[in-house]
Amino acid sequence: MTSHEHDEVWYHEKSKNIMHSHRVKKHIVSLRSRYQKIDILDSHEYGRMLFLDNMAQSTERDEFIYHEMMVHPCLFTHQPVRTVCIIGGAEGATLREVLKHDPQRVVMVDIDEELVQICREHLPEWSQGAFEDPRVELKCMDGRKYLEDTHEVFDAVLVDLSDPMENAPSTLLFTREFYRTVSERLAPGGCVAVQSESFNLIRVETHARVRNTLKTVFPFVSGYPCLTHSYHEIYSFTLASKTKDPAGVDVEAACKQKNLRLRYYCPELHRGMFHLPAYVYEAYRQFDRPIADNDVIYYPGKR
Amino acid sequence: MTSHEHDEVWYHEKSKNIMHSHRVKKHIVSLRSRYQKIDILDSHEYGRMLFLDNMAQSTERDEFIYHEMMVHPCLFTHQPVRTVCIIGGAEGATLREVLKHDPQRVVMVDIDEELVQICREHLPEWSQGAFEDPRVELKCMDGRKYLEDTHEVFDAVLVDLSDPMENAPSTLLFTREFYRTVSERLAPGGCVAVQSESFNLIRVETHARVRNTLKTVFPFVSGYPCLTHSYHEIYSFTLASKTKDPAGVDVEAACKQKNLRLRYYCPELHRGMFHLPAYVYEAYRQFDRPIADNDVIYYPGKR
Amino acid sequence: MTSHEHDEVWYHEKSKNIMHSHRVKKHIVSLRSRYQKIDILDSHEYGRMLFLDNMAQSTERDEFIYHEMMVHPCLFTHQPVRTVCIIGGAEGATLREVLKHDPQRVVMVDIDEELVQICREHLPEWSQGAFEDPRVELKCMDGRKYLEDTHEVFDAVLVDLSDPMENAPSTLLFTREFYRTVSERLAPGGCVAVQSESFNLIRVETHARVRNTLKTVFPFVSGYPCLTHSYHEIYSFTLASKTKDPAGVDVEAACKQKNLRLRYYCPELHRGMFHLPAYVYEAYRQFDRPIADNDVIYYPGKR
Amino acid sequence: MTSHEHDEVWYHEKSKNIMHSHRVKKHIVSLRSRYQKIDILDSHEYGRMLFLDNMAQSTERDEFIYHEMMVHPCLFTHQPVRTVCIIGGAEGATLREVLKHDPQRVVMVDIDEELVQICREHLPEWSQGAFEDPRVELKCMDGRKYLEDTHEVFDAVLVDLSDPMENAPSTLLFTREFYRTVSERLAPGGCVAVQSESFNLIRVETHARVRNTLKTVFPFVSGYPCLTHSYHEIYSFTLASKTKDPAGVDVEAACKQKNLRLRYYCPELHRGMFHLPAYVYEAYRQFDRPIADNDVIYYPGKR
Repeated sequence: MTSHEHDEVWYHEKSKNIMHSHRVKKHIVSLRSRYQKIDILDSHEYGRMLFLDNMAQSTERDEFIYHEMMVHPCLFTHQPVRTVCIIGGAEGATLREVLKHDPQRVVMVDIDEELVQICREHLPEWSQGAFEDPRVELKCMDGRKYLEDTHEVFDAVLVDLSDPMENAPSTLLFTREFYRTVSERLAPGGCVAVQSESFNLIRVETHARVRNTLKTVFPFVSGYPCLTHSYHEIYSFTLASKTKDPAGVDVEAACKQKNLRLRYYCPELHRGMFHLPAYVYEAYRQFDRPIADNDVIYYPGKR
Repeated sequence: MTSHEHDEVWYHEKSKNIMHSHRVKKHIVSLRSRYQKIDILDSHEYGRMLFLDNMAQSTERDEFIYHEMMVHPCLFTHQPVRTVCIIGGAEGATLREVLKHDPQRVVMVDIDEELVQICREHLPEWSQGAFEDPRVELKCMDGRKYLEDTHEVFDAVLVDLSDPMENAPSTLLFTREFYRTVSERLAPGGCVAVQSESFNLIRVETHARVRNTLKTVFPFVSGYPCLTHSYHEIYSFTLASKTKDPAGVDVEAACKQKNLRLRYYCPELHRGMFHLPAYVYEAYRQFDRPIADNDVIYYPGKR
Repeated sequence: MTSHEHDEVWYHEKSKNIMHSHRVKKHIVSLRSRYQKIDILDSHEYGRMLFLDNMAQSTERDEFIYHEMMVHPCLFTHQPVRTVCIIGGAEGATLREVLKHDPQRVVMVDIDEELVQICREHLPEWSQGAFEDPRVELKCMDGRKYLEDTHEVFDAVLVDLSDPMENAPSTLLFTREFYRTVSERLAPGGCVAVQSESFNLIRVETHARVRNTLKTVFPFVSGYPCLTHSYHEIYSFTLASKTKDPAGVDVEAACKQKNLRLRYYCPELHRGMFHLPAYVYEAYRQFDRPIADNDVIYYPGKR
Repeated sequence: MTSHEHDEVWYHEKSKNIMHSHRVKKHIVSLRSRYQKIDILDSHEYGRMLFLDNMAQSTERDEFIYHEMMVHPCLFTHQPVRTVCIIGGAEGATLREVLKHDPQRVVMVDIDEELVQICREHLPEWSQGAFEDPRVELKCMDGRKYLEDTHEVFDAVLVDLSDPMENAPSTLLFTREFYRTVSERLAPGGCVAVQSESFNLIRVETHARVRNTLKTVFPFVSGYPCLTHSYHEIYSFTLASKTKDPAGVDVEAACKQKNLRLRYYCPELHRGMFHLPAYVYEAYRQFDRPIADNDVIYYPGKR
């Protein structure tokens, strides 16, 4: 019983018109939490993978791309970083990257306690002990409610959510009202980073409207792509600040001083990454209706 | 963590031109023994399933069809049954059916000890304790070698093998020389039953040649189909005897007396099942070359 | 542009828990008629295939099995055959087999004119000119309506329908009321043959209830299996007669005289084929509620 | 026969460990030319698609991304552009983009005449009449041979090839010797653009070695990513010049003057796109062995 080969078991990411399939080494977890369907498996192509509601979220092989790009552009823009709030981020990898900046305190708020527990147990390479760090406070509750009720302010807020599908728990965390709340909880000079959906041509409207909604609250807003291979699609993040243009910050000195040994993010990349394809700028002009609590957006899939 | 749903995990039985896919509830075992690739999974359609080398062997839902048809036509043809030899039959379900006839002794010889152990552990509904029966002797070795070396004789020999694919361990157990050995180990009036491959139009040659090879050794040889749904194809068994035509035996009295409460096999079926489609009789005429140690047959797949 | 290979195009017969996939050489037709979705393609495994509503109906390689078994058991039971009515049978292969008996007149009634035209054009090997035979009258209308309104009587009625899925046009042609109408249109000694669904263990209820519904109208009713390989499942037909038991008719003399050179059906098979597995007889006892216009049955799929 | 729906026909881009599947509206062409397997189909997700050897090459929906990025960074770097040579580029879309710059002469050399003809016939939206332009000379022959034999020089050479898989015709067009030939055929100040493979983490070696091979011939070499969605992966191009750094050229004035109304490429993007992720720079250091005629590289797949 030593050699283990699972030749013909496949996991299918399905949508109506396109499907990505992964050859499975081992199927680790499959269950439905209160909020979503969770699958974890070992694939031949990407190593261990996490799927939520049948969509790849992060993989052993390339999660560093997503998580470095979620965290460092924001945190290097605002230095020093003393307090950080993460909304979402169940895998613990966003937390892991944040801790590299030696903050005094990090509050992480994820609504799905079951998912967080499963990630701690089955994705230890993601969090690498971050949940045990004494500077971290983990709260399992609605992130919007948390920010509305707290009086704390943060140097950075990282909004690391899954797509606002219909019925998804994240829908009300993509609205103008939510971004206003975030803005009120930012320390002076603070910066917010938002997972802001796909650059895919036929779904770019969601990204554009998230960006334009941030623009109604923050004077400085800049999107940039994230080339996570396992998404089979280019995703984006958007930085927003009340006081400075993230695209204009030279992060070279700060990066050199911190010497974080990152694999994807670097000052050279920072200088270029806010320069976008023409159709994205066109989408910013075309899709300008802000998202609001009474006018939410549903991501059409399919990543 | 209570509800378990695995919506998008599938097991694919692949061949070049056709594929059968099973939605998987749980993937139980996947390993390569010395002789073959073994997969066990819980499927939504058939319950627990055993695959050898990527081909369905038996399923919780319908294994009774295969195993009743492997055993009872042979054993009711020769009554009473005191000693039985099973060649192959790792799941233990052929053994289970044999024990219903109250034999004095059963020798079961399967070459793949690892497979037998896995079946005992993960397919307990198949064997239902049969391996623990004191009348059973289990030998993990080459079945042909066993029959060549033993001096014992049996009332029935059940040859329950997987397909003679190239490189499969069963290749030399489909030859004239092997059937001669079987014949020598049969008690007077004894009967042999052989898993004799598919009735599928484009693969019926294998069945026809197995039947015709038996015919070179035994005067009475009769094939019959086996409608195991999970094979997605009609398989066959063949009975052979030196002294009587199995198709001519009226099993009604014996069945009534034993009252085995079977679900598939019954005297009514026995009366009709040896009557075959025209193309099978035609194949018997067309494919008449006996299989021999120096002229083996390879099953072309794809079941 | 001479060599044509389509390596990676597949046609999937999907259901919730199981899927059969065919490697496609060429995709010929795909459209939705008024009544159903029609696909015709050339597959590597079965040659040309017809699918209705995503279920294989018949294939170049093995349609002869279905159509011989639909027609000859019924027609050899009642000899001579002067007039025949076919309800359904769009491919024209049932018609082709009927014409081998030299009837004086055949009325074929299929509700889906578009399907019939497509079959004439793209499945010429099925009908082999039968539609052009002057003894044939083709009517594209509801078969039940036709039989209710006609005053003609027939020596044989062949009910060659697809499964009574929900919303399928065939639902009201599986009821007691319909079988009464058929009975009234049978000549003395006439015989009816019905496509009577799968023997699959978990769907055998439909077959059992069709058989039992026929039993409320006809004194002699006998089911038999049909091993069409491309269905990946064993289907059945059922014969019904007011005057004689089809299972008791010896067709040997008639077959010999007609000498039809069939590939599947033969007198030898006829003698055995009405002998069924025990669980089918059990289903006859268990599922005894007749199907009626106000209590129709929906086939649960999945073939 | 008006409504056409092909629900269950899929085209599978297969590799050992991962598969991308496209729901097919219509399968247009499938044949094997002298050099490669060609498939054209209408998909629901991307519209018309071209596959070579089972890998997506370009799609109706997003081919503009690849082709704008193949052509304009190079041509705007060297202005004015009088003569251009395209190696490969069978679809005619690279040619279409080149013609927007009003060159005096374009030579396009593709080895696969059959493929070019099929693209002209079945992908007219790609070439949009470009093949008929009198300034265009199309030659169907080995592009390397052409450049070795000609005495002409070009302002730009665009090397638009498919991946150098084992046995692919493009293998010897990724070597140092080939790039030397290209260099000799460049006009002073001329620029070359090369399709330079995937940025995918586990296959980035090919890109790095192509870039480093160009570096042995040209003093200025700069790679940039290309986010073609239908590749499900980030591909790259690399610019090379003997006289100026393409990354340092400000294309704003030239773009404004030409006013080409592009959808993807824009001066804003040009400014950022040569800034790459850290792991790509690391790969440049790690994989520094030049590709040579006697030391070719095979792309490992799988896009």
